[in-house]
Amino acid sequence: MSTQTFELLILGSSAATPTANRNPTAQLLNIAERFFLIDCGEGTQMQMRKYKARFQSVNHIFISHLHGDHFYGLPGFLASMHLLGRKNELTIYGPKELEEIINMIHKHSETYLNYPLNFVYTQNTSKQLIFEDEKVEVYSLPLKHRIATTGYLFKEKPLFRNIDKYKLEKMNVSFAEIHKLKQGLDAIDNNGNSIKNGELTLDPIKQRSYAFCSDTKFFQELSNDIKDVDLLYHESTFLEEKADRAKQTFHSTAKQAAQMAVLANTQKLILGHFSARYGHLEEFLEEAKLIFPNTELAIEGQLFSL
Amino acid sequence: MSTQTFELLILGSSAATPTANRNPTAQLLNIAERFFLIDCGEGTQMQMRKYKARFQSVNHIFISHLHGDHFYGLPGFLASMHLLGRKNELTIYGPKELEEIINMIHKHSETYLNYPLNFVYTQNTSKQLIFEDEKVEVYSLPLKHRIATTGYLFKEKPLFRNIDKYKLEKMNVSFAEIHKLKQGLDAIDNNGNSIKNGELTLDPIKQRSYAFCSDTKFFQELSNDIKDVDLLYHESTFLEEKADRAKQTFHSTAKQAAQMAVLANTQKLILGHFSARYGHLEEFLEEAKLIFPNTELAIEGQLFSL
Repeated sequence: MSTQTFELLILGSSAATPTANRNPTAQLLNIAERFFLIDCGEGTQMQMRKYKARFQSVNHIFISHLHGDHFYGLPGFLASMHLLGRKNELTIYGPKELEEIINMIHKHSETYLNYPLNFVYTQNTSKQLIFEDEKVEVYSLPLKHRIATTGYLFKEKPLFRNIDKYKLEKMNVSFAEIHKLKQGLDAIDNNGNSIKNGELTLDPIKQRSYAFCSDTKFFQELSNDIKDVDLLYHESTFLEEKADRAKQTFHSTAKQAAQMAVLANTQKLILGHFSARYGHLEEFLEEAKLIFPNTELAIEGQLFSL
Repeated sequence: MSTQTFELLILGSSAATPTANRNPTAQLLNIAERFFLIDCGEGTQMQMRKYKARFQSVNHIFISHLHGDHFYGLPGFLASMHLLGRKNELTIYGPKELEEIINMIHKHSETYLNYPLNFVYTQNTSKQLIFEDEKVEVYSLPLKHRIATTGYLFKEKPLFRNIDKYKLEKMNVSFAEIHKLKQGLDAIDNNGNSIKNGELTLDPIKQRSYAFCSDTKFFQELSNDIKDVDLLYHESTFLEEKADRAKQTFHSTAKQAAQMAVLANTQKLILGHFSARYGHLEEFLEEAKLIFPNTELAIEGQLFSL
């Protein structure tokens, strides 16, 4: 098992109109203590307080598109970070026009943030690497919605091989040589004997990945961009009985989300972005599980760990 | 007692940064079934759902100023009204730049509201009548804050005199003549006898009024604009121990709010807009009550009836 965290917290699961129990879209993803906020619907800052999520740890915010239920919480989130003393740089990934909106709001409210705010513009013509550091890479993915929309794919970078500590204790190997072994190379012990990598190391766990796909109509080509993803969030605004409405509004049904899970060969599917017309969500689960059994619902406060 | 409703529901009581229990400023005032939304901080639409307030009954929204904690809930509120099928005209009262912000957000999210949206621009140089119908009038009031800010004064129009039904039963008076009596005029009964107004009518209850004053530093002249108001909401971001900080940030202390209540000769004071630094609010009440005993705290969900 990796000691590196890979955890997704659901902050909001509703479609355009929130309900008494469901907040608009927002998720907090923690990979190796990088906190990625994904969409930021109205009330996200209150939801983070409610679930005691670490506010100032967020350095990257990914906005899928400019329908209000995916970003109306952003101005308040930025303001509270400022008022609570943030100094660290923050980067927002999203459509170009988002910067215009934020700048205008700040201008008219005479807001001057005490921290540097960067924008990285997304485009939705092809899959693009938009962020990477030594442990994580993030791609934007074209989705098909009424306005320009991107999903996001979060992937761990190749992990070091694990050293077999029991075997290592019996040997005499320097730190420099251990580092070589972790990278998959052979090494030499302090007595000059060569060590084959396989003698002292174990396979690292697979690089884990998470794909966020909201909002979009079902389209088969998406599966190429998210092939073999471990955890897939796919919107399911409607049940299949409303497939016509889904098509009209460029949304998906629970059945279609499950079909995408199959096509993408994922391990687990999370459904979300439920229309306010549905009081109970059991039918979403039933509909999807007929096609893809390992399906769960996005519920506010729920944590998915890989 | 008047049968006309005059009720204020508190939807949010926090200053700039919300806390786990306190939402940013929003209030819903019902005078004679006119529903006035006063400020619209982030999460107002969720708060209205929580307290089962009538969403679509709001036809007038009054925004005090363009600091985010007073209007970041507005775009989401407007969008949900649209999605829930609103057709009726809605009017927003606030600074001119608010229209620019809303228009830009709607442009980039390709939002086309299904109902007419009007803007009435406020200015903060003098008290202005900005709305009236047959039962209510609303004035904007200049406040003194870091950016252009207005308070609002809501007043019932003169009410009809009440007919003394016990006396009326013993007499023979036409509907037309009863209407004259309600208006304060004398009348003639069906036998041609004159009736002095005082014989058959009782005084109506006093025209009730509510003043909303947030955000502002303390300044004595404000009391002239809200003289004799029945119910006064006055911000108290800080306790008196932070009077310096209040002055610096153009806010008020609980003590200053109480002083304003005395100067304005009000019946009841409501304190609100509490800084997130205060976990408990008892001291606000204690501090204000030393000067103005009939003080209460704005607490989410609380209803004040006149």
